[in-house]
Amino acid sequence: MVRIRFATTIRTVNPHFPYTHPEQLKSLTIQELQDLAGELRAYLVSTILHSGGHFAGNLGVVELTLALLSEYNLPYDSVIWDVGHQSYIHKILTGRYADLPGIRSLNGISGFPKMEESVFDAFGTGHSSTSVSAGLGMAVAARLQGETEKRIAVVVGDGALTGGMAFEALNNLAASQANLLVIVNDNHMGIDPNTGAMDRHLQHISESAENIFQNLGLDYFGPVDGHDLNTIKPLIRSLRKKEGPQVLHIRTTKGKGYAPAEAEQTLWHSAPQFVKINPGENPARKWQDAFGDCLMNIADLDEKVVGITPAMPSGSGMVKLMEKYPHRFFDVGIAEQHAVTFAAGLAAGGNKPFLNIYSTFLQRGYDQLIHDVALQKLPVVFCIDRAGLVGEDGPTHHGSFDIAFLQCIPNMLIAAPADEPELQQLMKLAPEVNLPFAIRYPKGSIPAALHSNALQFGKGICLQKGSHTAIISTGLASQFCHQALNACEGTPSHYHFPFIKPLDTDLLDSIFSTHSHIITAEDGCISGGFGMALADYSAQNKYMLQFTHAGIPDEFISHGNNNELYEMCGYSPQRIVQMIHQIMKGYLPNSESETDPEA
Amino acid sequence: MVRIRFATTIRTVNPHFPYTHPEQLKSLTIQELQDLAGELRAYLVSTILHSGGHFAGNLGVVELTLALLSEYNLPYDSVIWDVGHQSYIHKILTGRYADLPGIRSLNGISGFPKMEESVFDAFGTGHSSTSVSAGLGMAVAARLQGETEKRIAVVVGDGALTGGMAFEALNNLAASQANLLVIVNDNHMGIDPNTGAMDRHLQHISESAENIFQNLGLDYFGPVDGHDLNTIKPLIRSLRKKEGPQVLHIRTTKGKGYAPAEAEQTLWHSAPQFVKINPGENPARKWQDAFGDCLMNIADLDEKVVGITPAMPSGSGMVKLMEKYPHRFFDVGIAEQHAVTFAAGLAAGGNKPFLNIYSTFLQRGYDQLIHDVALQKLPVVFCIDRAGLVGEDGPTHHGSFDIAFLQCIPNMLIAAPADEPELQQLMKLAPEVNLPFAIRYPKGSIPAALHSNALQFGKGICLQKGSHTAIISTGLASQFCHQALNACEGTPSHYHFPFIKPLDTDLLDSIFSTHSHIITAEDGCISGGFGMALADYSAQNKYMLQFTHAGIPDEFISHGNNNELYEMCGYSPQRIVQMIHQIMKGYLPNSESETDPEA
Repeated sequence: MVRIRFATTIRTVNPHFPYTHPEQLKSLTIQELQDLAGELRAYLVSTILHSGGHFAGNLGVVELTLALLSEYNLPYDSVIWDVGHQSYIHKILTGRYADLPGIRSLNGISGFPKMEESVFDAFGTGHSSTSVSAGLGMAVAARLQGETEKRIAVVVGDGALTGGMAFEALNNLAASQANLLVIVNDNHMGIDPNTGAMDRHLQHISESAENIFQNLGLDYFGPVDGHDLNTIKPLIRSLRKKEGPQVLHIRTTKGKGYAPAEAEQTLWHSAPQFVKINPGENPARKWQDAFGDCLMNIADLDEKVVGITPAMPSGSGMVKLMEKYPHRFFDVGIAEQHAVTFAAGLAAGGNKPFLNIYSTFLQRGYDQLIHDVALQKLPVVFCIDRAGLVGEDGPTHHGSFDIAFLQCIPNMLIAAPADEPELQQLMKLAPEVNLPFAIRYPKGSIPAALHSNALQFGKGICLQKGSHTAIISTGLASQFCHQALNACEGTPSHYHFPFIKPLDTDLLDSIFSTHSHIITAEDGCISGGFGMALADYSAQNKYMLQFTHAGIPDEFISHGNNNELYEMCGYSPQRIVQMIHQIMKGYLPNSESETDPEA
Repeated sequence: MVRIRFATTIRTVNPHFPYTHPEQLKSLTIQELQDLAGELRAYLVSTILHSGGHFAGNLGVVELTLALLSEYNLPYDSVIWDVGHQSYIHKILTGRYADLPGIRSLNGISGFPKMEESVFDAFGTGHSSTSVSAGLGMAVAARLQGETEKRIAVVVGDGALTGGMAFEALNNLAASQANLLVIVNDNHMGIDPNTGAMDRHLQHISESAENIFQNLGLDYFGPVDGHDLNTIKPLIRSLRKKEGPQVLHIRTTKGKGYAPAEAEQTLWHSAPQFVKINPGENPARKWQDAFGDCLMNIADLDEKVVGITPAMPSGSGMVKLMEKYPHRFFDVGIAEQHAVTFAAGLAAGGNKPFLNIYSTFLQRGYDQLIHDVALQKLPVVFCIDRAGLVGEDGPTHHGSFDIAFLQCIPNMLIAAPADEPELQQLMKLAPEVNLPFAIRYPKGSIPAALHSNALQFGKGICLQKGSHTAIISTGLASQFCHQALNACEGTPSHYHFPFIKPLDTDLLDSIFSTHSHIITAEDGCISGGFGMALADYSAQNKYMLQFTHAGIPDEFISHGNNNELYEMCGYSPQRIVQMIHQIMKGYLPNSESETDPEA
């Protein structure tokens, strides 16, 4: 991937931007809307190049947003943006112009539509392919409540149409007679180029043959140029007036109006990778790079190894592999359910599949993981990227829950490396164990090696021996705890558990017999997580210990810088230092707090 | 629903049934295969009427199974049965003829294909819509390994095609060039009549217009009569020889050859409901009946109440409601992802949706529950039927995991009633709380009322006060514990928690302060479950207690009679009696066991 550094662009902030409510757009002529489109693009480009955020997709829907917001009666009507990272223009035109520079930062506006942020965000999105279902529900609700004039429009990309739930909704749409307009925003791209038969079909749709929407009983209009306001504005007006569901197929260009983004659409999907690179500085090595390099090595040595990604070859670090072994690496599109069971089929057929999937998207393949992989003991290796907090993408994308939702599944093995040598050892071990194996690792830069021990299957590692209090941590949290201990008075013990399941019960027995207070730390939800499993092991085995858990509390965590979020959640290195001090105080000679339990 | 009692049918077991390997079928003429079809139907009907099991679907695929097993080279080739409850003929013809009478019973053969049961069961199924993904994986594996002669066939029903993951797989199929034959077994039915646009499309497919399979770049053959061996056997032979993916669309009749089943296909989907009803005996009232009646009452009183089922109107008890309020009750087809987000849209639009979904199928809507419901705090009521063990359907269908996978999700409320008055109170309460609310209840007969207390939101109930040991149970397990205590020496306390989340921490503080040993009991997995949350609360709050958990252990549980399975898992009333005795022994005056902890 080419990395480009840009000269600082002057921000074109207009202190007198007049559009705060979409009804103001209704009186504008096409020419005025086109002028406004130019101003919006300039503002978007200059702002997002500084602030970071989704980029090319937003440039592609400037005209569509203007057409929709000028023809629909928001907020009485609703517009739902599938995935939602292309909703920036919508946000600008619905009272959030001045908020754009702070988008995705803590206390700033979200990078996705969010119901609690604005009455104009009719339904929150983030994951793909939800909009038709949500819009159908809202349209049916309007009909049941006698709101015959109310209209719902959803904008769904061609990439999102490969997600099965969009098809499930389309299957229900024709019979519903709901007043729903489905706009297919066909830019021939996801983050990476779109794949699969649906994409090809959309490129070859013609009037001479029945298309898939017509097969499904829907009225279809298109394809039309989604940048031509002279076409789409009157078409949307007339479709809005029709009764029953309609499909409008528009073609747009991702990155439209900004030449570098039009030319390299994957690179320009998001902007932050550019603005943070200075000349001569090497970009930090990321977990996904470590994954990609390691899988390349494994694939070189064992031709049974195959790789699968649901539409994330770039994000997961698999591009080089797919180029080297195109027949052994599969981008199945936005299709997490299929990705998991396809991997299961490959394993049943004798291959060694590595499925790379973001923690938050594995939620989409949960049933398949249980039913098609774990139940059948198939040796699929789940490389779970973006596990834990993911920063600016926020609550729709945090990988908070995977330890909890995997730990309860029989036959699953779960590991969380703290550094690159551990990731490498786990990835080499995983296909040999002959059981489903999940390796979770976070977003961001890969830290320095935590220790030099060789991993042993199922075994924890003692990093520091102390007394009274033991810290037991896993994955990234082990790095945080290690940093905390370096800055800490008192001498708690510290154990790193690269294996979450199976638990190293021999080591736990030894730790629990020699300490009074256990601090657990993980980059995942506390409820149902690693620490809770340890506390339960203690309670079932007559250890009379007190537990304090560091991890993600039982709430949805905002967007923001990850360091800010760790701090908020209470498991940043600084917060762990405080936790240790607080607990160790109880073991100082003069303390009475520990001998006077509340109970 | 009409319930019919049948005269005892004489079983036509043939002690000399010669077919134990499908290659024996290769030498048979069409006439001989037709004769065999008749024998198979007679054996199936007479056996399943006695043993219970899936019925009409199997009668519909007799000729298809004969054609596939005589043309494909099993077990080198593979045949995958989507859902798999139509695999009985396949089982009979692959060495399991004599096992059919014991199907679905403990230690008998499974009612679904199962890899560990037979080399001829190439991939385990149970849930819908997985076969194309699995088959594609296996076909790609064969190609990668140079097995150019190996062929995979999958049989997927029209109902299963509405499941999004089947579409995700079809989207990938054309480009794969894998040697996969997808047979669409179109009988116009799921368990209930199929719904949606795909079903209509299949009924109206013609040569004059491009169909959905052709739109997705696939070679399509059909529709043909799936009961006509003269047609389908040579067609399957020629399609097997082709390179690349093929789609064969056959039409069959569910229940074929058995007139009552052909006439009432939903009633005859499974057989056991008939054989267990004696004249004059009322069928036991089931949890689903209680749900259906209660929702009817709620819907009568509040027109904002709407109901949703993913293809289970009969099983969930919603048929009467759908007939009374057809515009307010939605059968969305086999489409759990869509069902959840459609419900979210209805809630966002101001309705009060009750989504009835089996625990095991909610795994399919997990991401949608997190991302579209819980994150947005939408007041969707999840009525989770078949929570806990489900008996004869076995590991693919047990509702083992829902407490664990829901408990970790912020904003979720979770309740488990022990009887019908509790179910009613919870269903009336749920839409008023304005948060996502899950009510889980089991399969089977609804037991007598456990107590006469009115429920208070979030509060547990003391059923018996004792000393030393406290039993804390939820849902059906509270009934088991109550029965156990009636048959038990010693006097432990017993608390029933209808609310799993939020936990009644006031009551827990009181219990934990006055007891030494806690037994938790739930009809769900122990790992990540209710009992583990209690143990963690204890460990975090300085209670020095020992915990013993009764529930589903960390393994996949077999099929069998539910009472046998509860016993195996260790939480039947009898096993809880043993557990109590064992623990209470430690508190007898002469015991030393409790004062000598292993730790």
